[in-house]
Parts: sequence; C-alpha cells; structure tokens
Amino acid sequence: MKIWVIGAYGIVSTTAMVGAKNIEKGFQTRGLVSDLPVFDKLMEINKFEFGGHEIRIKKNAYDAILEHWNLNRHFDFSLIENVKDELEKIEAKTGTALNCGSGLKELGEIKTLEDEGYTLREIVDMVTSDMKEFADDETVVINIASTEPLQKYSEEYHGTLDGFERAIDENRTEHISASMIYAYSALKLGLPYANFTPSIGSNLPALKELAMKTKTPHAGNDGKTGETLVKTTLAPMFAYRNLRVLGWMGYNILGDYDGKVLSHKDNKESKVISKDSVLEKILGESPYSITEIEYFPSLVDNKTAFDFIHFEGFLGTKMKMYFIWDAIDAIVAAPLILDLARFLLFAKRKGQHGVIKELGFFFKSPMEIDVVNTHKQFEELVSWYKSLE
Amino acid sequence: MKIWVIGAYGIVSTTAMVGAKNIEKGFQTRGLVSDLPVFDKLMEINKFEFGGHEIRIKKNAYDAILEHWNLNRHFDFSLIENVKDELEKIEAKTGTALNCGSGLKELGEIKTLEDEGYTLREIVDMVTSDMKEFADDETVVINIASTEPLQKYSEEYHGTLDGFERAIDENRTEHISASMIYAYSALKLGLPYANFTPSIGSNLPALKELAMKTKTPHAGNDGKTGETLVKTTLAPMFAYRNLRVLGWMGYNILGDYDGKVLSHKDNKESKVISKDSVLEKILGESPYSITEIEYFPSLVDNKTAFDFIHFEGFLGTKMKMYFIWDAIDAIVAAPLILDLARFLLFAKRKGQHGVIKELGFFFKSPMEIDVVNTHKQFEELVSWYKSLE
Amino acid sequence: MKIWVIGAYGIVSTTAMVGAKNIEKGFQTRGLVSDLPVFDKLMEINKFEFGGHEIRIKKNAYDAILEHWNLNRHFDFSLIENVKDELEKIEAKTGTALNCGSGLKELGEIKTLEDEGYTLREIVDMVTSDMKEFADDETVVINIASTEPLQKYSEEYHGTLDGFERAIDENRTEHISASMIYAYSALKLGLPYANFTPSIGSNLPALKELAMKTKTPHAGNDGKTGETLVKTTLAPMFAYRNLRVLGWMGYNILGDYDGKVLSHKDNKESKVISKDSVLEKILGESPYSITEIEYFPSLVDNKTAFDFIHFEGFLGTKMKMYFIWDAIDAIVAAPLILDLARFLLFAKRKGQHGVIKELGFFFKSPMEIDVVNTHKQFEELVSWYKSLE
Amino acid sequence: MKIWVIGAYGIVSTTAMVGAKNIEKGFQTRGLVSDLPVFDKLMEINKFEFGGHEIRIKKNAYDAILEHWNLNRHFDFSLIENVKDELEKIEAKTGTALNCGSGLKELGEIKTLEDEGYTLREIVDMVTSDMKEFADDETVVINIASTEPLQKYSEEYHGTLDGFERAIDENRTEHISASMIYAYSALKLGLPYANFTPSIGSNLPALKELAMKTKTPHAGNDGKTGETLVKTTLAPMFAYRNLRVLGWMGYNILGDYDGKVLSHKDNKESKVISKDSVLEKILGESPYSITEIEYFPSLVDNKTAFDFIHFEGFLGTKMKMYFIWDAIDAIVAAPLILDLARFLLFAKRKGQHGVIKELGFFFKSPMEIDVVNTHKQFEELVSWYKSLE
Ligand SMILES: NC(=O)c1ccc[n+]([C@@H]2O[C@H](COP(=O)([O-])OP(=O)(O)OC[C@H]3O[C@@H](n4cnc5c(N)ncnc54)[C@H](O)[C@@H]3O)[C@@H](O)[C@H]2O)c1
Ligand SMILES: NC(=O)c1ccc[n+]([C@@H]2O[C@H](COP(=O)([O-])OP(=O)(O)OC[C@H]3O[C@@H](n4cnc5c(N)ncnc54)[C@H](O)[C@@H]3O)[C@@H](O)[C@H]2O)c1
Ligand SMILES: NC(=O)c1ccc[n+]([C@@H]2O[C@H](COP(=O)([O-])OP(=O)(O)OC[C@H]3O[C@@H](n4cnc5c(N)ncnc54)[C@H](O)[C@@H]3O)[C@@H](O)[C@H]2O)c1
Ligand SMILES: NC(=O)c1ccc[n+]([C@@H]2O[C@H](COP(=O)([O-])OP(=O)(O)OC[C@H]3O[C@@H](n4cnc5c(N)ncnc54)[C@H](O)[C@@H]3O)[C@@H](O)[C@H]2O)c1
Ligand code: NA
Ligand code: NA
Repeated sequence: MKIWVIGAYGIVSTTAMVGAKNIEKGFQTRGLVSDLPVFDKLMEINKFEFGGHEIRIKKNAYDAILEHWNLNRHFDFSLIENVKDELEKIEAKTGTALNCGSGLKELGEIKTLEDEGYTLREIVDMVTSDMKEFADDETVVINIASTEPLQKYSEEYHGTLDGFERAIDENRTEHISASMIYAYSALKLGLPYANFTPSIGSNLPALKELAMKTKTPHAGNDGKTGETLVKTTLAPMFAYRNLRVLGWMGYNILGDYDGKVLSHKDNKESKVISKDSVLEKILGESPYSITEIEYFPSLVDNKTAFDFIHFEGFLGTKMKMYFIWDAIDAIVAAPLILDLARFLLFAKRKGQHGVIKELGFFFKSPMEIDVVNTHKQFEELVSWYKSLE
Repeated sequence: MKIWVIGAYGIVSTTAMVGAKNIEKGFQTRGLVSDLPVFDKLMEINKFEFGGHEIRIKKNAYDAILEHWNLNRHFDFSLIENVKDELEKIEAKTGTALNCGSGLKELGEIKTLEDEGYTLREIVDMVTSDMKEFADDETVVINIASTEPLQKYSEEYHGTLDGFERAIDENRTEHISASMIYAYSALKLGLPYANFTPSIGSNLPALKELAMKTKTPHAGNDGKTGETLVKTTLAPMFAYRNLRVLGWMGYNILGDYDGKVLSHKDNKESKVISKDSVLEKILGESPYSITEIEYFPSLVDNKTAFDFIHFEGFLGTKMKMYFIWDAIDAIVAAPLILDLARFLLFAKRKGQHGVIKELGFFFKSPMEIDVVNTHKQFEELVSWYKSLE
Repeated sequence: MKIWVIGAYGIVSTTAMVGAKNIEKGFQTRGLVSDLPVFDKLMEINKFEFGGHEIRIKKNAYDAILEHWNLNRHFDFSLIENVKDELEKIEAKTGTALNCGSGLKELGEIKTLEDEGYTLREIVDMVTSDMKEFADDETVVINIASTEPLQKYSEEYHGTLDGFERAIDENRTEHISASMIYAYSALKLGLPYANFTPSIGSNLPALKELAMKTKTPHAGNDGKTGETLVKTTLAPMFAYRNLRVLGWMGYNILGDYDGKVLSHKDNKESKVISKDSVLEKILGESPYSITEIEYFPSLVDNKTAFDFIHFEGFLGTKMKMYFIWDAIDAIVAAPLILDLARFLLFAKRKGQHGVIKELGFFFKSPMEIDVVNTHKQFEELVSWYKSLE
Repeated sequence: MKIWVIGAYGIVSTTAMVGAKNIEKGFQTRGLVSDLPVFDKLMEINKFEFGGHEIRIKKNAYDAILEHWNLNRHFDFSLIENVKDELEKIEAKTGTALNCGSGLKELGEIKTLEDEGYTLREIVDMVTSDMKEFADDETVVINIASTEPLQKYSEEYHGTLDGFERAIDENRTEHISASMIYAYSALKLGLPYANFTPSIGSNLPALKELAMKTKTPHAGNDGKTGETLVKTTLAPMFAYRNLRVLGWMGYNILGDYDGKVLSHKDNKESKVISKDSVLEKILGESPYSITEIEYFPSLVDNKTAFDFIHFEGFLGTKMKMYFIWDAIDAIVAAPLILDLARFLLFAKRKGQHGVIKELGFFFKSPMEIDVVNTHKQFEELVSWYKSLE
C-alpha cells in the first residue's frame, strides 16, 4: 500500500518509514497493533510506499531521519543503513503552513506554498494534485505534522462543504488552516485520511460531509501514545472500584521539534485541550485535574510524564498513586502510523466510510464517540474488525 | 444480612464493621463496588449483622478496632465513636489455627480450640455449631484471617469429599489447615463462603464437591487490592499495543500484623505465589518478573508498592514505566468484604452455586477462571449480574 | 522568650504555637534544629509567649488552628486539646495588607488597618505600638504571613532609611508593602526580625541601614523546607562528581490557603523567583531548569514536589534521577519558627547585628551570602554558634 | 602513568580504558572528580597505559568492550573506534579466582592459575611477576574484578604479615582469596593499590602492615556510585533538620555480569553488608532499613535504585520521600578508576602511605574512617589535597 504523510520529515514519520522499510525486508518488530494475531489479515499488508508534504527543507527522508537519529539515537543505527536507498527515494512535496502559528519559527528554514504568493484555491489545487499524482487505489493520507494553533470555529465556512469551498474560492485565509487543506484534498480524492495530531484536520462538519459524499473513511484526532494512554487505561480502575479521584496531575516534559513548537503559547492550546475531558468520560465525575506540557530540551524525543492521582476510598480516606512514563515518543507513535494505514485501507476495502469511530483506540480525542477507556476501545476495535472480516 | 468473619478482630474485618455500621446510620462512603448504579439492587442490602471466629484475645470488635486505629489512624475517629455500642456487641468465638505457621507468634497472646486438646472432628463440630447458631437464611461467611502457609496437596484427603471427611474422622491433622475447616463448616451448612486470603480455604476438589452437593455458592482467592489490582489493570495496555514486557518488578512493603505474619518464611510462600501468573495470563508471554513483600514496621497498614516495568517497543527500543501505590490496605480491602457479602447473597437468592467465577473481579487468584484483566473481570461481573437480575 | 508572629493565624504559625506550648509541658518532639546536641544552650530557651498581627478574622489561635486541623489532621488532635487554654489567650492584632495582591481574596473575610482609612504613617505607628506593647528584652518578630507580590524596587524610597521614612511620611503607598512595614517596626524597636516568606520584609538597603543603626539582628528570606531543601542538599553531589546537570525540573503542588494565594499570578511571582538561582550557585553552571507551583486543593497542606534531574556523565552519557517529596509543609516549617526565634535571641544576646548570614541554613534565598549548599550552611551555622558560645 | 587493573575485561575497566584513551586524544568528558579545577595538578596526569589480570578468555580489551557495548550501548560507538588500536594492545594476564564463589559460573568460560594446579606460593609469585614486569615508578593497581564472597576472618593468617605469608607458604588455600593475593602482590611491590569492590582486598591487618612496611598508599573499599552515593548525600539533611528516619528502603536491580554474579547468594553477602552501616554513622541512630540487590537482566548495566524514606518530623507526624536513580553503573564508576589512579599517584609522589583515609569520598565502606557523609568526604579530600600540593 501507499502512505502519503503530512509532515513527512518529522521524527514520527521518518521512524515509521525506517520501520516499514525494514519490515519489508523481514525485520521483526513489536509495537504494531495490527500485527496482533487477532487482526490476522492486516499483517499481510506489508509493503509500504511513502510520499508526503513538508515545509522543512531536507533533501529526502534519509537526510531527515539522520538529523533526528543524531539527536535521539532512538533505535539501532543499522536499521537506517539497511534501508538507506529506499529512504533517499522519499522526497516530500512543498506543503502549506497556513495559520500554523508562531511555533514554526522553531523548525529552522522552511518553505511553503503561500510564501510564493498563491491564493488559497491555488494552494488547494497544488496540494490535491501532489496527492493525486502519488496515489493509487490503496493509498492513505496521514497527518503527522506539527500541531497547529486552535482555529476559531466559523459556522459559515466550516459548517457545510459549500461554505468551506466558498472560503477557498473567496480566499478567506483567516478561516482555513493547513491541516484542513490537507484533509480536504485527501477526502476530495477519496483517500482515507487519519489525523494523528490535535490540529483540526477533518474534524469539521464541512469535511465530514465531504467524506460521506466521496464515501471515504477517516479517523482522528491526536495519537494516544503517552500519558493519556496510561491515564485512560488506569482511570477505569478507580471507577470500577468506586474510588473518588480527588485530583489528577499530569505533567509532561519533552524536547525535540515537537517540544519546541509546543512551547509556543498559540501552538500549545490545542494540545492541552485535547487531553481535558477523558477523565470525566471515564469517571462520570470531573475531578480537579492538571495537564501540562513543558519544553525540556535535553530529553529530545524522550517525552516523560509525571502523574499523581489523589483518591478517596472507604470511610473518606485519601490515598495516592504516582506514575512515571519514560518512553520515546516517536517509538510509541511510529508503529501506529502503519497501523492506521492498514486499518483505514481495510475499512476502505470493506466499504466503510465517514468517521470510523472504532479506530478511537488510537486517539486521544476520538471523533464522534465518547468511549475513551482504552480497554473498551480495544474491544470495539476487535469486534469491528471481526464483524467485517 | 449477616456476615460471619473468620479473623473477626483483624484490621480489614473491623474496618468493614465500622463502615457497615455507619452505613446503617446513613453515612455516605465511596469504595463499595456494589454501590455502583449498575448494581442497583445490591445497595438495598444495607443492614449487616456480624459474628465470627478469632484466635487473638480481645473483648470485642470495639476493643480490636481501637488497637488498629491507634496504630493507623486510617479514618476519622468519630466513625468509631458513632457505632461504639454496635461494635461492643460483636464478640468472636474461639477459632482454630491448625497449621497456621510460625507467623502466628507475632499476633501476641492467642487462644485456639486445638490448645484445649480437641480432636479434629471435635474442632470441626464446634466451628460448625458456632456458625450454625449465628446464621440465618441470609448469612455469608468470609475468611479474612492471617495468611496460612501453603499446604501440600494430598489427593487422598483433598481430592474428594469422602477423603476429606475421612481425614477429619481419622484426625489427620497434618493434612487439614484452619482455613479448610472454616470453609468446610460454612459449605456444609449451605452458607455462601468467600476466601479473601491466599490460604487454601475452599479451593480443594473435596470442598468444591461439597459446595455442589449443598448447592452453595463460593468464591476466592485472595482479595485483589493493591499492586495486583494496578498490575492487572495496566498490563493489558502493553498487550493491546503489542509492546513486549521485558521485566516487571513489584516490590511491596507493609507493617502491621499482616506484615509481621508475612515476614515469616512459611507464611509468605502462598502470598508470593498467588501473584505470579497474572502477567502471563494477560500478556500471553511470560516476562521476567519479581514480586516481593517485605516488612516495614513504620508504615503499619499503609502498604506501599513500587513497580517498574521495562518494555520493548518499535524497532527494539527499550522504554520504562514506574508506579508507586501508596494506599491503606484495610481501606481498600474492607469495602470488598461488604461487596462480597452482598454479591454472594445475591448469588444464593438467584440459585447460583459452586464457584462463582464472575466474582473473579475481587480476587488475585480467581478460582477456575483465567480472566485476570481487571477490565474484563468487571464486564463479566456486570453481565453476570444483569443476566440474573 | 516572646515571639511576635506576622500572620499569626496561619497554619505554620499556629502549628508552631501548638508545638511550643506542648514543649513547655514537657512534650518531646523532633524537627527542631536548635534541639540538636551541638546547640546545647538553645534548648534551654523553652518558654514561648506569642502575639502577632493578622488580617483574617478569628477569635484566637485556638479558633485558627481548629480550622487548619480539620482540613489537614496534620498531627495528633490531643496536642491541641492539651494546650487549648494557652492558645485561646493568643489574640492577634489587626495588621496591614498594603500591596498584598489579589490573592488575599482567597483568605475569606479580612480586616486591615488601611480599611479604616489610616495614612501610612498612622499604620506604621499602630503596628509599632502593638509590637512595643507586647515586647520585652527577649522578643523576636517573625513574618510568616501570606506571600506578597514582588514589589518594584525604588532607589529613592528603598535605597536609604531616610528615603523610606520619607515615603511613610508622604504616604507613598505605592512603594511600601505590608511586609516592609512590619520589618521596619520591628527593627525600629530593636526587635530581632526573621522573614520566613519570599516577601521583601527587611531585604532593602533602607531597612538594613535601620538594623545597623538600632544594632538589631535580622535574617531571611523564605523558609527552606521542601523541594529547595532537597535540591540544595542533593545538587552538590553532581558538582562533587563533576556530573553535568542537563536539566532540573521541579514541579510542586499544594492546596490550603498558601496554595490558594499563590495561585494568583501576582502573588506567585516572588515564589518562583526565590527558587531560581540556587542551582547556579551550587553547580557553577546554569542548567535548564523548571520550577513550578500549582494549586491542588485536595492535598491541603500536604505540599508535594516532583523533581527530575537529567544529567550527563562520563563519555557524554545521559542519566536520570527522580524524587518525590511528600511532606506536610506546616510540619516541616513550624519548628523552624521556634528555631529562628532561639537563634535570633542568641544572636542578640551575643551582640550580633545586621543580617545574620549564618542563618542562611533556614532560607531559600539567604540574604547577603551565596552559600546555598545545605551541608555548608549547616557547617557555617554550627561554627558561628560555637564561635559565640 | 600506568594502571594495572584486576578484572581488566570487565565493563567498568574497559569503559575506563576507552575514556582514558580518548582523553589522551583530547576528548572532553565529564565525570572525573580529578578534573575539577580545585585539583588543578591532577589534570596534568593525562596519559594512561593499561595492563591487568583477568580470568575470562578474551583476545584483548577491544574484544571485551565490544561485548559490553553491544549489550549496553552505553556511550557513542565512535569512541571505541577512535581508539581501537590502543585497546587491541591491552592484553590481560591470566589471574587467580581463588575462593571467588559460585557466581563465577556466570562469566562463561574462564581460565585461572589454580586450574593449572599451581600452589598458592606459585600463584602469588606469578601474579607478582606479571605486575612487576608491567610496572614503572608511576604505576597503580586497581581491583575492579567481580565481587568475592565474604571471607571468614582468621586472626592467625590475616592478623599479621607473618601469618599471611605463612598461609601462602603452607598453601592454606581456604584462608586466602584472589583479592588478597592481588593486593599483597601490589603492596609488596610498592605499587599503590585501590579496591573498588566489596571484596577484602587490602583490608586485613596483615596487608595494612605490609603497606606500612613498603611505604605504599592504598585505599578502598567498594566504589560509591549509585544508591549509596545518593543516600550518603541525602541522609545528612534529615540529621541537620533533626528529622527521625523511621525506615529507609533501598531496592536495587541490575543485569549484566555483575548482576549475574551477585545473584549468587555467596557472592551477594559482601555487597549487602558493605551498605549497612552508613545510615547509622550519618544519623547517629539506626533506623529500620532494607537494602536489596536483585538481578534484572533486561537492564544490563543500567542499575536502577528505588529508595523510600519514611521520616518523622514535628509533633510526631510521619512524612515520605522517594527517589529513583536511573544510571549506567559503568558510566558512573569508570571515571573513578582514573580518579583513584591519579589521586594514589599523587599520594605516592607526596610520600603518603598506609590507608589514605581522605580517599573515603570514593568508597561505600571507606577503611579506617567513620566519615560517610559525601559532603564531608569531599571537603576532606579537598583539604588533604591542598595540604600536600
Ligand atoms: N510522537 C507522539 O507520540 C505523538 C502523539 C500524538 C500526537 N503527536 C503529534 O504528531 C505531530 C508530529 O510529531 P513529531 O514528534 O513527529 O514532530 P516533528 O516536529 O518531528 O515533525 C513534524 C514535522 O511536520 C512538519 N510540518 C510542520 N508543519 C507542517 C505543515 N503545515 N505541512 C507539512 N509539514 C509540516 C515539520 O517540518 C516536521 O518535519 C505533532 O503534532 C505531535 O503533537 C505525536
Ligand atoms: N488488606 C488487604 O488489602 C488484603 C488484600 C488481600 C488479602 N488480604 C489478606 O487478608 C488477611 C487479613 O489481613 P488484615 O490486614 O486484616 O490482617 P490482620 O492481621 O489485621 O487480621 C487477621 C486476623 O485474623 C486473625 N486470625 C489469624 N489466624 C486465625 C485463625 N486461624 N482463625 C481465626 N482468626 C485468625 C488474627 O488474630 C487477626 O486478628 C490476610 O491474610 C491478608 O493477607 C488482605
Ligand atoms: N510552610 C512552609 O513550608 C513554608 C516555607 C517557606 C515559606 N512559607 C511561607 O510562609 C507563609 C505562610 O504559610 P502558611 O502555610 O502558614 O500560610 P497560611 O495561609 O496558612 O498563613 C498565612 C497567614 O497570614 C495571614 N496574612 C496574610 N497577609 C497578612 C498580612 N499582610 N498581615 C498579617 N497577616 C497576614 C493570613 O490571614 C494567614 O492567616 C507563606 O508566605 C508561605 O509562602 C511557608
Ligand atoms: N559499576 C559500579 O558502579 C560499581 C560500583 C561499586 C563496585 N563495583 C564492583 O566492581 C566490580 C566490577 O564491576 P563490573 O560491572 O565491571 O563487572 P564485570 O562483571 O563487567 O567485570 C568484572 C570482571 O572481573 C573479572 N574477574 C572476576 N573475577 C576475577 C578474578 N578473580 N581475577 C581477575 N579477574 C576477575 C571478570 O571476568 C570480569 O571481566 C564488581 O565487584 C562490582 O561489584 C562496581
Ligand atoms: Na528512566
Ligand atoms: Na505518598
């Protein structure tokens, strides 16, 4: 299959590429949900061709992963050398960074379509034509670019497909962000789309309408990898045992480009909000909670979470739990890119379209579904898969 | 309803009594699973009368909880004073400590039936008649006495009810431990029985046969409260995400009588073993694991667990997670005594008998079932309840 | 001796009072530095009479500690009942809250001198006369009131005693904050003064001049109790071993009045800044560092710190250390109030005046000295004491 | 200078060699105490030639470090390649493993002098002649071989040099262990000797007598690197603040050869004991304490410590502190090998001999001195150095 990646030179993207290309050569690895025996058919999808959009100036994916690897050394270097040729062939097309916030400054030298003075319509057309040129029948688009600032919702331009297309034609750049453009192009072309970031992506009535119209499956938002993954696995325990969570503190630190971009106030907003409501959904009551993300350069991509849970049990007694999650963000996230590609392709093959709620397992803020309990999400994923198989 | 508690003056028992008696007076508390809305009918069971067996010499349950409270201050003292009269009325009968190990030394002055030179048959008869005198149609027996050493299995005397009763009649004291006697008496009388400890209790072919014969529901073993509760909630996450657990360290420290008794090598054995196999059941592979329990006097009942999980993800990369569980054991355990009483009474009312596997949610080593994932256990509990309601 | 406490109804103040009054009755307790054998003479100072200023409306110190105790249960209740009579006799005088920030809103109903429309000069006179009335030759004043916002430094009014007194006479309320007034009054009266808070207190050239003039010892600022205490004990290890600290994260959460007040942005500022420079002083290089304090209501006074230290050792290898400090702030701080009183009285008796730098051991931001390494501070305290003894 | 390493192919040894050889080429690194500005003269000692004894069969130090590196990847691989030639030249001589315990089984194929049937006297002579051949005037011997089991003290053979030499001549192999032989040979030759392990080494009256006789400086025992380093830095804080440590739990896990060897009961003994008394020395009272070391293979050399400190403060209130030390043992230890070499050479140059107590800073169980507070040890190291400089 083919995967078109938005943010193709990012660490998650390029780590996924290294993995995919090594898997093609028979390399065995853990971390892929779609490799579990229960999803037996998905493992057969084991050729992955990559393309994508970028705004950072790099020669190719090899060039990009080298930079990430030198900072992170997050896996065995020989895995890069094994697939150097394949990575060198992956060259991203210039993308758009419309309304991507002040954090982009941190990415170093960038190049975008809007720099050239194109109109919104022209940008959309170019993005679409890049995808179209690359895509075949079994192509999926995944957004794993830097997090955009939260965009203000406009009923007029976001509420209907018509309005959205009018915004493009009328060049209403203040209402349209890059992630919307990418999602629009993908869905317009009938390419299954997943949004691994907290950016808006396809999460607009207008684009959901488009997905229904073109009969395209899509999914999002925001890959569930670190603290939220643990939180949504653990919090149900307090609910089952009728323990009251008095407070839940989640403090996250990370370095890397992602950390740098998020250290900008406008880019951070959407990150924090996408973590907010899960506890309430699981616990049925809303405890005092803190979720913070701070930049900590020396960690690079080794995002670390410190969580503290204060809870009340029998007879009003307060008790405590702490956890530390010390993982490599890109390592936890990258296999999910391949998972999403496989599951979306599977969905397409099975004629599914619109928001695929059962993929909620992969996301912090799953669209159109309130199930955030990781256990339940996994069960739903399995039974959805079984029902279509 | 009535609850007959083995180990009636222990901290879990007496804390449960304080809770129950306050609940009768309208006190609101968290921590009871059976109070969750989904189990709506169970909340109606809200009168609890207590009796039980003991071997420590105390005047009554008030006397016993005072000692525990002074060491632990584990809840608001006024809750004891509120129900002083009721607690003073709870006086335990002298029990048996047959084959209960060297740890009993730590309990201070004790008094047992075997001290008086009775035969096994006489002991069994006395234990049974104590229970019979107390019990009505809605009485449940719960073992929450100190952990016994692991008993060697004897096909001859444990394999059939016949053999078991022969052991009693032939006074084969080396094959019969106190927890078996209590379980035998309860099941013989048709009283639902739960074993909250890692001791053998009713977990013998002989006693399971008896339960079927007398059509009595029973459940066990070993209340799932601390580290194992968290472990069985968290470990599934690694399985769902296809992450390999390289090693799982669980290090527990506790003080109190329970800690003192467990600090004896013979009494510790069964504790460690009952924690061993859950990871394998959840992960489908058996990681290197350490589970230790050590005595730490100043913590008293504030059992604390330190867990470290080393895991491997995508591309062979190793990552880490740590948690600390800082809870009050008796506070987490006590409401489950009331829960088990309610659920077993419910089971009896609905004509259930034999091992009630769906109560596995409450136990570290659930009998006759391999489901140890807390989430699945909860779902099974709920659907079992719904199916009978 | 006598102690005049600014913020007399706070949790630290009243906990110190409970301790002092119980000590008078022979109660043995840990936590007092001045009780260490090396400071043998100080233990002889074991009668403490209390007065102070407040702005919250409470009947007396008994009334105040009851409120704190009910929220925190931070020690055995009988210790309050033992000394109820003595606590009821401690009634604070109405103080000033000039420029104390928006956080005071959180304190509930308050009453201040400026509410009555007095001029700065009148306020100063009233504060001074309250102290004068109470004080004898062996009286010390300690500021343990809520943290004020950082005050802008004015060379004109803060740079000289003359300027400062002019500000009072000219009613320049924008330049003078409550903590300065209290410090001014104490030093003017020749009463040794300690500032346990991050507020300015006596830390102005003007007031240092005054202390020299009236030959009065003073000390500050900001009691070193939690994370900073650990940090300044631990950080030297990295320096001694020539390990490079790449980053140090300190994340603190607390509830209680102190937490509520600090949750106001203006009141928080001075707290964060007073923690900033210690690492640089110890390490001789300035690592990336985060120090945050957030409000977490259910913890009440159980301030908890999460620290993460990322460091580089031999051959460029990065390593990690984490600590969690789970203490009761008032319990750690209260004995230091008595310590400071004893040490300042000792200083006065020995004819010391001006800033007593050797008391830096007790403070996060010791005045006029760069030694922040806890070990060195302790050594300096001991040798100063020995040299005067 | 020259360094003769006992256990020359171990991970600490070979990591030190990689470091030393890179330093010779101008590589800048942290982690060397002797590089601190205060020890200005020591940095000038920056050429290191290596030899040593071993029992594992490896071609040379390059061969050995490759194996360690492949398991641990504990530093940048290019550092090995930079100095490959130099490492290949380091070939160890066959040593002795007399009374080295059952743990040696874990080392794979080994070869020892006693395998060949030599007598004790012959072994001693061969070991001595290996050292003699290598050594010049500026040579130091450091024991960093696997930990031996604790040897029973014999007044007859360990109490005097005479007795010790008699044991050798009479071939009393039950009283003499490998580490004693190495220490004896070094001291006999007048080569300064340091024992970085918990084995006996030179810590016998007999060998101390020898050191005085040959005017040779020596130091030990057991490098202070992980948990004990932190413990002896942190524990003083509790003493200074008059807080009572109620209990201190230290739980260590490690993999690697060292972990495998220590997993043998006889080899573990000396490790646990060497950690026991430091708290008492620092606190002046002896808290309940647990110190455990367990094997955890996937961590390899990433030894991790979990510490929990339960302490009592003002008014009897109990509080808690936790720390996690997540470091690479060899990375923390290796630079200390070079430090000890430099400091011992410095001592020799300055005419120091016998136990150099001021090197206690580097050891868990410093010989002939009770100072274990890291801070005081550092101060003593500095003033000793300054006094001789
Ligand atoms: N790593 C995880 O575990 C995880 C989990 C959830 C979400 N995410 C999200 O995934 C995204 C990527 O994370 P990463 O760690 O790979 O970050 P990264 O900074 O390494 O990669 C992002 C890439 O996107 C590119 N980019 C930015 N804006 C773009 C645009 N408008 N069009 C095309 N390319 C653009 C950047 O140049 C960069 O190469 C972030 O939004 C992050 O919040 C990551
Ligand atoms: N507290 C928890 O979270 C938890 C969880 C799982 C299992 N358990 C188990 O529950 C049991 C009780 O724990 P606890 O903390 O209340 O301990 P405890 O020591 O306070 O209470 C045990 C009581 O049992 C009594 N006893 C001992 N042997 C007896 C016998 N043979 N017959 C009658 N009475 C006997 C003792 O005298 C004591 O009063 C232990 O076996 C423990 O391992 C506790
Ligand atoms: N507890 C610690 O470990 C610790 C350590 C260092 C510093 N401190 C500082 O000590 C101070 C007190 O802490 P706490 O926990 O007792 O807080 P608290 O809120 O319980 O007490 C503060 C008291 O000061 C009173 N107050 C406020 N402004 C006043 C004013 N202008 N004049 C007179 N009284 C005033 C309040 O009414 C309150 O009763 C805070 O500034 C805190 O930052 C505490
Ligand atoms: N790494 C640390 O932080 C640290 C701290 C304190 C003490 N130590 C001690 O240092 C020693 C070495 O640790 P390591 O991690 O390098 O272990 P390692 O197992 O990698 O190295 C030990 C080496 O000694 C060799 N050896 C064993 N017995 C020998 C003998 N009798 N003669 C000659 N060679 C022998 C082994 O073959 C091996 O190559 C251990 O005793 C350990 O307890 C290490
Ligand atoms: Na870690
Ligand atoms: Na805690």
